[in-house]
Amino acid sequence: MGLRYTFEQKVLFKHCDPAGIVFFPRYFEMINDCVEHFFSDALNWPFENLLRTEGVPTADISTRFVAPSRHGDHLRLTFSVMRVGRTSLSYRIDATCGDETRFEATATLVHVNLRGRPSPWPEEIRAKLTEEGS
Amino acid sequence: MGLRYTFEQKVLFKHCDPAGIVFFPRYFEMINDCVEHFFSDALNWPFENLLRTEGVPTADISTRFVAPSRHGDHLRLTFSVMRVGRTSLSYRIDATCGDETRFEATATLVHVNLRGRPSPWPEEIRAKLTEEGS
Amino acid sequence: MGLRYTFEQKVLFKHCDPAGIVFFPRYFEMINDCVEHFFSDALNWPFENLLRTEGVPTADISTRFVAPSRHGDHLRLTFSVMRVGRTSLSYRIDATCGDETRFEATATLVHVNLRGRPSPWPEEIRAKLTEEGS
Amino acid sequence: MGLRYTFEQKVLFKHCDPAGIVFFPRYFEMINDCVEHFFSDALNWPFENLLRTEGVPTADISTRFVAPSRHGDHLRLTFSVMRVGRTSLSYRIDATCGDETRFEATATLVHVNLRGRPSPWPEEIRAKLTEEGS
Repeated sequence: MGLRYTFEQKVLFKHCDPAGIVFFPRYFEMINDCVEHFFSDALNWPFENLLRTEGVPTADISTRFVAPSRHGDHLRLTFSVMRVGRTSLSYRIDATCGDETRFEATATLVHVNLRGRPSPWPEEIRAKLTEEGS
Repeated sequence: MGLRYTFEQKVLFKHCDPAGIVFFPRYFEMINDCVEHFFSDALNWPFENLLRTEGVPTADISTRFVAPSRHGDHLRLTFSVMRVGRTSLSYRIDATCGDETRFEATATLVHVNLRGRPSPWPEEIRAKLTEEGS
Repeated sequence: MGLRYTFEQKVLFKHCDPAGIVFFPRYFEMINDCVEHFFSDALNWPFENLLRTEGVPTADISTRFVAPSRHGDHLRLTFSVMRVGRTSLSYRIDATCGDETRFEATATLVHVNLRGRPSPWPEEIRAKLTEEGS
Repeated sequence: MGLRYTFEQKVLFKHCDPAGIVFFPRYFEMINDCVEHFFSDALNWPFENLLRTEGVPTADISTRFVAPSRHGDHLRLTFSVMRVGRTSLSYRIDATCGDETRFEATATLVHVNLRGRPSPWPEEIRAKLTEEGS
């Protein structure tokens, strides 16, 4: 298993729907926040810098919602690098509350230049992405 | 191919990110809106009624983002029933702009009672869901 | 009273909070959508064109939430031009459901160039903005 | 000046619009998050508990956007109690980045029972709300 990173997110009022559980599009905002923090904290490459000269759009994402999350739940999203391609990154996120799984996502993002063309990862970033996880 | 329904959505300012393209979590709001309108328009079972006594949470969703969408693009989401289970519904959504595919999603939702337990589709709804598409 | 424009918005699932009423930040998305459609439909100046060379950021907005809105409510937002300055536009929005007021907002937006500096309205736009309302 | 509370929020990708600045409805989500954390941290009355038996809907809010905020900015929202009524709370929020003001909001929320009727603040909460600020 590759590099891992954990991101904590309490379920807030804004995340919840009339059924009192997280509205599933909000989970994708949490996923995006988790990836943004991974780039900032684990790769030392914050999106606000990266996006000046390149991009990392999501190419695909598959998510299984295992159990609902409620207002006040403390979620832990564990981001794991799955595969590092020449221009792509496949990752998975396992979201838990205590020892209960809430959702699992696998996704691929692509490193692109400002014209939106796939572009090889910088060597320094590739080196970090391919580190062994703990 | 089963029952189909089309939903039009112009890409608005609120959908777009600093790269000038749709922020992918916003696509899931569009997908949710499309499903909500399908229930209201095609099944004559609006969410605001349905949700008083039952629910239809999303169990899984897989999405491939084929090409980016820009502010002002006129998207057409085509919802197609894939499989109707005893308590579940599998559907796909193909989103296009003109003759260009923008994203494709397949998802499963589950009909649940107020305690969140899977519950068989009402007969009238099952009859509509299993109609042949055009 | 100046130029008016009406914008219809059904309250959808995504708008509602665990109390089953519209989450107030969602009202500001509706307001933004209403203004975007006003520019597109009433001024024939869609945001997707406007934003290539200028902007119309909101400088201030004051909103009174008179009564809650529920899932399924059919809201009507009536946009009225209040005052057209050299570089600014003051408007109000009255949102109703049937004959019940739901919220009232007054706001000012400013026409800016790409460097974010206030910039006079184009003559053609000023002419439209200062038309008498019906 | 009454009780104060500060809330930090980095401007993330999800907050920003195609102009690269915070989309103003997202500021209202930040304001709601700030109020939610104030109730949780300063009043020891988390929304997830409060909302089981009562509510605190926003009655009005006025906001002045003084300067735009960009992706990566570290915002500090300072919440100050302005006036504590029998059933209401008026507050202001001053949002800064470094020593630059970004927006200022004043708002009123109302303590209501489950039927949405204004209801006096519990004594313990009133006591905390009316503490002198530092």
